[in-house]
Amino acid sequence: MKLKCLIDKYDTPLYVYSEEAIRNNYQMIERAFPYRPNQIHYAVMCNNYPDVLKTIQLLGGSVQINSLRELELVKKLGFKDEHISFTSIGLNEKSIKELINNQLTVNLDSLEEVEKYCKAGRGKHFGIRVNIVVDIPLEAGHTNSYRHTDVGIREQDFKSVKLIAARYGCKVIGVHGYLASNLLDSSPFFYYADYLKRCAKQFPDIEYINFGSGFGVFCDSAEKQFDFKKTGQYYSDITTELSTFFKRDIQLKIEPGRSLIAAAGILLAKVTNVKQLEHKRQVAINVGFGGFARPKLYDACHLIEVAGKDKIQGVYDVRAATVLQTDFIARDRSLPMIEEDDIVVIRNTGAYGMVMASGFPGCIKPKEIMISSFADIL
Amino acid sequence: MKLKCLIDKYDTPLYVYSEEAIRNNYQMIERAFPYRPNQIHYAVMCNNYPDVLKTIQLLGGSVQINSLRELELVKKLGFKDEHISFTSIGLNEKSIKELINNQLTVNLDSLEEVEKYCKAGRGKHFGIRVNIVVDIPLEAGHTNSYRHTDVGIREQDFKSVKLIAARYGCKVIGVHGYLASNLLDSSPFFYYADYLKRCAKQFPDIEYINFGSGFGVFCDSAEKQFDFKKTGQYYSDITTELSTFFKRDIQLKIEPGRSLIAAAGILLAKVTNVKQLEHKRQVAINVGFGGFARPKLYDACHLIEVAGKDKIQGVYDVRAATVLQTDFIARDRSLPMIEEDDIVVIRNTGAYGMVMASGFPGCIKPKEIMISSFADIL
Repeated sequence: MKLKCLIDKYDTPLYVYSEEAIRNNYQMIERAFPYRPNQIHYAVMCNNYPDVLKTIQLLGGSVQINSLRELELVKKLGFKDEHISFTSIGLNEKSIKELINNQLTVNLDSLEEVEKYCKAGRGKHFGIRVNIVVDIPLEAGHTNSYRHTDVGIREQDFKSVKLIAARYGCKVIGVHGYLASNLLDSSPFFYYADYLKRCAKQFPDIEYINFGSGFGVFCDSAEKQFDFKKTGQYYSDITTELSTFFKRDIQLKIEPGRSLIAAAGILLAKVTNVKQLEHKRQVAINVGFGGFARPKLYDACHLIEVAGKDKIQGVYDVRAATVLQTDFIARDRSLPMIEEDDIVVIRNTGAYGMVMASGFPGCIKPKEIMISSFADIL
Repeated sequence: MKLKCLIDKYDTPLYVYSEEAIRNNYQMIERAFPYRPNQIHYAVMCNNYPDVLKTIQLLGGSVQINSLRELELVKKLGFKDEHISFTSIGLNEKSIKELINNQLTVNLDSLEEVEKYCKAGRGKHFGIRVNIVVDIPLEAGHTNSYRHTDVGIREQDFKSVKLIAARYGCKVIGVHGYLASNLLDSSPFFYYADYLKRCAKQFPDIEYINFGSGFGVFCDSAEKQFDFKKTGQYYSDITTELSTFFKRDIQLKIEPGRSLIAAAGILLAKVTNVKQLEHKRQVAINVGFGGFARPKLYDACHLIEVAGKDKIQGVYDVRAATVLQTDFIARDRSLPMIEEDDIVVIRNTGAYGMVMASGFPGCIKPKEIMISSFADIL
């Protein structure tokens, strides 16, 4: 059993990433967006494990970064400026100057940033992050959507953007947006794309449209999948329309984020105790919030399996072996008979796993490794 | 201005802890609990900065730990076994054996742990963490309370605990409880103490009663304070009653947690941008969720000041300079005029700050230092 060898060597908790799964996902997404030229910008904040980034680079992928620290990392790995897109909020003068020294694409979030950028980088080009002013129906419970923030530049301020840019001989060459995280339904993306198109048309020097926002990942099944094809076709049609409108090739950019990498990662943990409760059992494992924050932070749901066992036996809560009351990974799951030292496999943990690990409270942080294929160990 | 020197030397974001503030808090709490013998067990998971732990040690304090990693840390700092209390959930056989090799106090969470402990440590003594079965009225919004968990051993299982212990020649020498985090009202602690007393009376070999659960910290004012005196007197009376009942000195233990250390820490951050919104301004600073998680994680409220400015000028949202939509530290705060490069002081950040820092997304984590007194820099 190869899983055992892996654990003997690296111990648990352990994040395992599959090169094959990243490749399959990347190519599936690439095929779903038929428009060319396009760029798939992987958000480095999802998972910055160097082998993950190198795999994406080899596939021809680009990166989305949000800090100078991430810039240093991707440069060190060999990403070229034309494959780097920088989008953040609240840039100071110093960061802006540093960004101007590179040839990468920067999407600015406010008039204040635009002013600083143009002043420091006379004649330079930039993109803007737009604020969504139209009402887009979203699935329930999206606290992390465009509605709960003041991100981006409002349409009513586009005129000011153009005035500032003109004053310093700069050009607005792209628009970037953000809708929400983890939407499972594709239809809101159509409204969103329409709105981005409307924004893009207002900037005559536009070279790219960046449909930021990741696509959802279903938690309860590996079979169900976000409708990439429909979304890809819609984004492609929008960009084709823009190219026709401007009479030149507009570049289509997407930031698939978690949908590219989540399923390419699993988290292996060891069972430390099984406690009998009145109507179910509570399993403690050697990882929790400090190694994998999503369940506690977002009430996120992740499929859990028990290595080498598949006959469902009873109902379990799965929690961390820490003193924290509410350090749960999952509740009320039907699982096979679990015993101390069993290995649990937490699925879809390739994104927002290790990058959010703090070790809290007083725990050892997981390690990370990449393997060729999950088929080698599971 | 000494603050400037500190920042020139250590840069921002920076956690600054005050030795004087820890000492004052510790002594205030010690005075509030007149019963002797008592022990103040500081939960290392709040803040494990070595100078913080050393300060508490010099004051005669004890520590509450929840992992073998924390055990290693406090042992290295010189804490003696009699000043260490270990409470966690889901201990495996290996951890239990390691704990048995020490002379510290262990509070066990389940019958399964009791069985493992007694089997491995014949003749050894232990405490139990009790499950609260009575209904205690709590302030609204406490998701992290005894009600949302299956922590501890139920009263109906005390008989089984005693049977297992007797079988291996072990004794139950303490009871430990947990009510909730950050309760501002002291009255729930009285119900809770009554219940712990009822549990303690059922174990004839009891040596200590550990009133786990931190006390609340008011977010909006340094003046308002949890009623330590009333709670201290109540806990003392309960323990006196137990001593009379058992005709020997029962030890009183408390775990003041955040209430001991929160106000002894500030977080210094630098303003990177000020964005004009329709009705307010949005300030971006160089720290957010990845450096200080409480605002995003618990919607926690922390007093914010602007160094060197005190004339209120307008309404501000304070957020991190990251790409994350909802990486807010505070919303709708009345603050002085803020400009780029201003230093903001985030108050009450001595607990659950650095220990929860992940750096997410792609940011530099704060540094930590300890100074003699906040009066030296503010």
